[in-house]
Formats: sequence, C-alpha cells, structure tokens
Amino acid sequence: MSAGAGRTELFSAVDVIRAKRDGGELSDEQIDWVIDAYTRGAVAEEQMAALAMAVFWRGLAPRELSRWTDAMIRSGERLDLSFLSRPAVDKHSTGGVGDKITLPLAPLVAACGAAVPQLSGRGLGHTGGTLDKLESIPGWRASVSNTEFRRQLEEVGAVICAAGADLAPADRKLYALRDVTGTVDSIPLIASSIMSKKIAEGSAALVLDVKVGSGAFMPDLNSARELAETMVRLGGDAGVRTVALLTDMSTPLGRTAGNGLEVAEAVEVLAGGGPADVVELTLTLAREMLAAAGREDADPADALRDGRAMDVWRRMIRAQGGDPDAALPASKERHDVAAPATGVLTRLDALAVGVAAWRLGAGRARKEDGVSAGAGVRLLARPGDRVTAGQPLLELHADDPARFRAALAALTDGIEVGPAPPARRPLVLDRIG
Amino acid sequence: MSAGAGRTELFSAVDVIRAKRDGGELSDEQIDWVIDAYTRGAVAEEQMAALAMAVFWRGLAPRELSRWTDAMIRSGERLDLSFLSRPAVDKHSTGGVGDKITLPLAPLVAACGAAVPQLSGRGLGHTGGTLDKLESIPGWRASVSNTEFRRQLEEVGAVICAAGADLAPADRKLYALRDVTGTVDSIPLIASSIMSKKIAEGSAALVLDVKVGSGAFMPDLNSARELAETMVRLGGDAGVRTVALLTDMSTPLGRTAGNGLEVAEAVEVLAGGGPADVVELTLTLAREMLAAAGREDADPADALRDGRAMDVWRRMIRAQGGDPDAALPASKERHDVAAPATGVLTRLDALAVGVAAWRLGAGRARKEDGVSAGAGVRLLARPGDRVTAGQPLLELHADDPARFRAALAALTDGIEVGPAPPARRPLVLDRIG
Repeated sequence: MSAGAGRTELFSAVDVIRAKRDGGELSDEQIDWVIDAYTRGAVAEEQMAALAMAVFWRGLAPRELSRWTDAMIRSGERLDLSFLSRPAVDKHSTGGVGDKITLPLAPLVAACGAAVPQLSGRGLGHTGGTLDKLESIPGWRASVSNTEFRRQLEEVGAVICAAGADLAPADRKLYALRDVTGTVDSIPLIASSIMSKKIAEGSAALVLDVKVGSGAFMPDLNSARELAETMVRLGGDAGVRTVALLTDMSTPLGRTAGNGLEVAEAVEVLAGGGPADVVELTLTLAREMLAAAGREDADPADALRDGRAMDVWRRMIRAQGGDPDAALPASKERHDVAAPATGVLTRLDALAVGVAAWRLGAGRARKEDGVSAGAGVRLLARPGDRVTAGQPLLELHADDPARFRAALAALTDGIEVGPAPPARRPLVLDRIG
Repeated sequence: MSAGAGRTELFSAVDVIRAKRDGGELSDEQIDWVIDAYTRGAVAEEQMAALAMAVFWRGLAPRELSRWTDAMIRSGERLDLSFLSRPAVDKHSTGGVGDKITLPLAPLVAACGAAVPQLSGRGLGHTGGTLDKLESIPGWRASVSNTEFRRQLEEVGAVICAAGADLAPADRKLYALRDVTGTVDSIPLIASSIMSKKIAEGSAALVLDVKVGSGAFMPDLNSARELAETMVRLGGDAGVRTVALLTDMSTPLGRTAGNGLEVAEAVEVLAGGGPADVVELTLTLAREMLAAAGREDADPADALRDGRAMDVWRRMIRAQGGDPDAALPASKERHDVAAPATGVLTRLDALAVGVAAWRLGAGRARKEDGVSAGAGVRLLARPGDRVTAGQPLLELHADDPARFRAALAALTDGIEVGPAPPARRPLVLDRIG
C-alpha cells in the first residue's frame, strides 16, 4: 500500500488528499510534488483515486488548475517545433459521433501553409478514434519515429500519429485511473488532461472543437462552455494561442459513423464533395487554425476546390506506409433500418448512432480490443429530410450479422419522424477565445 | 487496473462509485456486491478509494450504513459464543491517551460473572494499543488459538487477544486503505469499521467508550455524539444491546501514558488503589457492561476491593503465557519536565502527552515498527494541582535520550499554569443507549 521508501518525500499524500478533501487550495509545491510522485509511483493509485474524487468534489481554483496542468506537462517532454519553417497549429476535438474532421482538416491546413502535428488517440466507447479510422487504410501505420515525425511535418506539413509515451505520462496514468474510478467527468480533470497533452505537443496555437449534445462528452451547453473557457484559459497560461468553438453533436456529423466509412467520406470532402456539415465544420476550423497560425490570408475553400488539400492527404498517407488508392475494407453484412412513418425526420440521435456503430464493431469496449475497419452506420437521411414509411433510413454494416440486434436496440429511441421540420440548430454554437 | 476477469460481476464498480458520487443511495445488492467484490479483489484498491472518498463526501443513509456494516461482517466469520455458561459482553474504546481501562476492566467484569471476549488491536499514532501494553508483561502472547480462546473465556472469564484474520476481513482491507487515502475521519466509515468487528465478535451486549477531546479521534462533543448514536443504532440493527458513554479525553487518563507504565497503573487499580479517574471510569464501564449482560446485581467496587478482580487478572495473564509477578521493563533514560511557573496546573493536553509518549518510543509510526515497553510519560501532577515553578511535572521515559528533544517539542504548548483552578470537567459527559 505504501510506496516510495528510500526517498525522502517533500509531502505526505494523505496530507495533500485531506487538504483538497476539506476544500483547501493546494500549494504550487504540493501540486508539483503529487503529480511527480504519482508519475514515479511514490503516490499510489489508490491515493490518486481519492485525490481525484476530492478534486471532483471540491474543484481546482484557476491557479491550482494551471499548475496542475503544467506539472502534468513537465512529467514528460515538451516537443520543440522551432525547427519548422512554417507555423505549427494544432486542433483537438472532445469527441463525437461521425467526427472525422481531423482527416480532411489536417491536410487542408497544411496545404494552406501551416504545419499540423496531430497526435491522436484510439476510440473507447461510442466515439471513434482518429487512429482507428486511418488504420482502415491498407498499410497505414500510426506509429512514427521522432525523425520521421519531424521530416514529415516539415516536408508534407501534416502528421496524424500516435502520441509517444514521453508526452505527459502523468496524464496517461491519471486518465486510465479516472476511467475505472468514476472520476472522468470533472471539468478541471478533463481540461488539464486535454491541455497537458496538447501543450506538450509544442504548437504555438491550438483550436479546440468542444462538442455539445447527446453524442458528446458534455451534453449541455453550459458545461461545454465552462470546459471550453477553462481550456482556453489554460492555453493562454501556457503561452499557447487557444480558441474554442462549441459545435453541435446532437446528431452525427456527416453521413457515416465507422472507421473505413468515415475515411471514405473524408476523401469525398478532400475531393471537393462530401456532406455539407462536414465541409462547413472543416472550413470553419481551418480558418480558425490559419488565423491562429498567422495565415489568415490563405483560403481553405480554394485549397479544397483545386485539389491541393487532396495532394497533401495522399502524401501524408503515403509517408506513413498507406496506399491512398487502395480500396477500403467493406463489412461482410448489411442491414437496413426503415423509416417508422411518413413525414419529416425530426431526430436522429448522435448517441444512439454512436452506440449502434460501436456495437456493430467500429468501437471497442476495452482498450485491448480490436476494431472492425468495415463496421458502422451509413445515414441515408438526415434530420430535416422528408421520409416515407418503410424507406431505408440507415444502413448498418457489420462483419457478423449477430451484431445487428444489439445495434438496432440502441437505435430504437434515437429516431423520430414528425409532421413538421425540426428547428434548424446551427452547427457552430459559440466561439470562445 | 481492471480485476475480476473470469467471473461475471453483478455490478460495475464505476457505476456504484458514480451513484454515490452523485448523491444517490446504493441498493442493498450494490452494497453487498461492492464489499464482497472488494474483499476478493474484483473491486480494485483505487476503486474502493474513490468510493470511500465519495462516501466521505455524500455520507451513507441509515439503511445503507446498516447494510454496509452487515456486509463487512458477512465478509468473514461471526463468532458463536452460545457455548458459554455466562453472558458475554464486550467493550470498545475509540482510543485515547493513557487509556488502559481495558486492562483492569476485563478481569473485573469477569470476576462479577460475565464473560469478556476482548479482541484488541495495536496502536498507531499517538494512542496506545491494548496488545502493545500487555506485551510488556514478560511471556505474554497476544495470539491464541480458537480452542484456547473458548476455554479461557469459559474458565477464566476474560480474554484479551489479537483478532483473527477471519473477523470482518473487508474491514481489515478497508481500514488499511482509508489510512493511506485521507478517508479515515468519516463517521459512517468509522462506525461501520468499529461495529463490524465488534458485532462479528459475537457478544450479545456491547458498551462503547467514545472519547471526546484533544487526545481523541473526535475532538468535539457533537461529532462524538453523532458517532456514538450511529454506533448504538448499528448495534441495535444487528441485535446487539449497545450503550455508549461519551467520556473526556482532553487530558490523559490516570498518571501514565506508555506500555509497561500503563500496565503497572492497571495493576494498582486491580490492587484497590490507582488514580481516581481510572478507578471511576473502570467502575462506570463495569456497571454498564454488567447491566447490559443482565448482571446488574453484581457490585464491581466489591470485586476490586476484595481481590477477585486481581485473581482473574493473574489467571488471565498466566493463561496467555505471561508472568503476573515479573518485573515490567523499565526505560534506560529519564528526563523531568519542570513546571514553567507557580500556580495551578490548568491544562495538561492529552494530545501533547500522547504525541510525546509516541515520540519517546511507546507508539509506532508505521504498522511494521516495534514499540518500546518502557518508554512513555509519567504525570507527576494533574490539572487542578498546585505547582511551584521548577517542580517536576512530567517524567519522560525513553531507551534513547535522543528522543527527549522531539517529545519536549510536542509538550511545549500542552502545559499551562494559571492563577486559578480550571473548571472541573466531568469524566463522563453523556450516555447514549
């Protein structure tokens, strides 16, 4: 139970836990110590779990949170991107259903003259992971060496790859711990987790896409705004120009949720087509990133139209061993979901579609699980569309037909057909920064 | 991080933690599961730590607490004392400085016709442990077999020994966890910890001595009363007649704090002498225990006077290998603490004396540490006594003179001499039951 013998510790974990438990503010020295000692194992998992629950309860004051985040950054290395000849800008989404935006966005922004180092993760639960999606491209590999990373970022302008273990290792440990101890949904803990990783990535500018709605981590606008404001402040404290958009996640983005399905849709966008909402959000985020990088003169719509973004995409995929011309894996089985009535599709719930895609095999329940490249959901209609009873609304893709039943159960309450079109909800709900 | 693979669990630990975290009440089934799963390792230490902090925050409703306690009892065996020809009655003190009451009390109550199974612990921090004290008697051993326990309880009437590992093992694990995670001082967690062990010991009656004041776990009367009421209710829920006394612990009990020093004082009481407060509390608790055991006709003062209690003491010590006539170990070094002024000793703080005794070697800082049999503090004056500047107030005993300095530092603010006697504080502050 006890740990850290053989080294005199500056503080006692119990004292730090009790201070926060009783509503006190931790000193800079206490925060530095507890994050460092946890990273090297002198503060035990059960002690950090108790502290995380106390933070969940009592919160962290702005000074504490800023220091906590900084301590997590200092638990590992902070990338130095000063070698780049172009400005680096990063983007982070809090995760949503059908959120493939990073795929067209990174090459698009690179095509406009910025460098985009996009250190990404895998999916867990109902939201997909960018690396899972790209891994459906034959040959593509998520892991790149330091040398490859630097060369690709300079020469191609965009790298989407797995984050190394040296980046905010305290967060890596703490994130896994929070996952099993019911301490995930705490705004200071979420904000410091995201921002410690993003700041450690070394970009001078960062655009955050904070999702709001049923399919998002933050279902309501107020908590999403609080999270966004907290992260923007943390970015500023660390000298990173940070802007956050609050964007709608009550219905899936685009017309696909799944790995290969979303890559195909991203390629459509890069080819100048694709669903309007995906194009809109890609361009909006691209403009924010270019402005943050000091390239507000560049026109990302042009770069989509004239094929420059697609060129970068192809080079980016090839640089990591992928074949941009290879056929994407398709699932073995399909199943259509029919419209329950005639009228207007008023609701197609993001969470319902996300859980369905997950159950079809696109996501994983445990970190150790694999994902299916072909599984997922294709939306044949979107909210606001007129539909006729019996007409196919959704196409379910799975390798194993036994999965359809559980996916259908998730969708039951997620689809509504009514007499009149729903109020149109804007895609971008607010901007903070 | 995850545990319990290979067995389908009824609940998810994260769901249980989140329910309590969000202020909900846990169901009986959730409580039974989480205590059982924690005991067998399917709920990890870090998960129980987060739950304990959530309980610290949100509390447990009476139904939850009763079930929680019962689940901890059911994690092990509950002793069956029905073989006894006399009624069994148990006593528990929440711990104080100089609290050697169990030593004269157990043989005294046995001498009056009840059976006293006193499963005790070792000390940690500034309060001493009953087993540590008895182990200063040459030859005495704390561990007895089941058969020895039953025979001694029937034939001698009193056993003070170490609790077996089979008694409330969930509490054993949880207690160690709370100690390192800042979740000790939660009334429901304290109450369920004490009562699960005491109820598992199988007595039909229980008298609680809840200490109040600087040297106690509960410094103020209100929290001590809440703890006492909670434990009395839990006893009733489990069919154990339970009474609690709230007793003063603002100054040490008697004139000694230390292992061998306290045994010697207990023997004085059994010989019909000893400090008035120790005699008063011993008799008061004895009367409560005898009443709870249905022996209200017995007069414990008689049994002290006529040597029957001393006879049981000697048989009890001998039954566990001890020599009641052997000299008790004395410390190698002594150091006197002088009165700082002439007047009346108005304050001799229990916590200050407890910490001093601990630092002199009477207590341990870690479970693995040993204790010194001879170390401790002898009080040469008590609050209310007239003292002259320079007169010895305390005698410090230690094997290593290097320890005096730290002990003296603990005492600095604990001694006050004033012009007038302090208001007399009664020893027994309240009775609940």
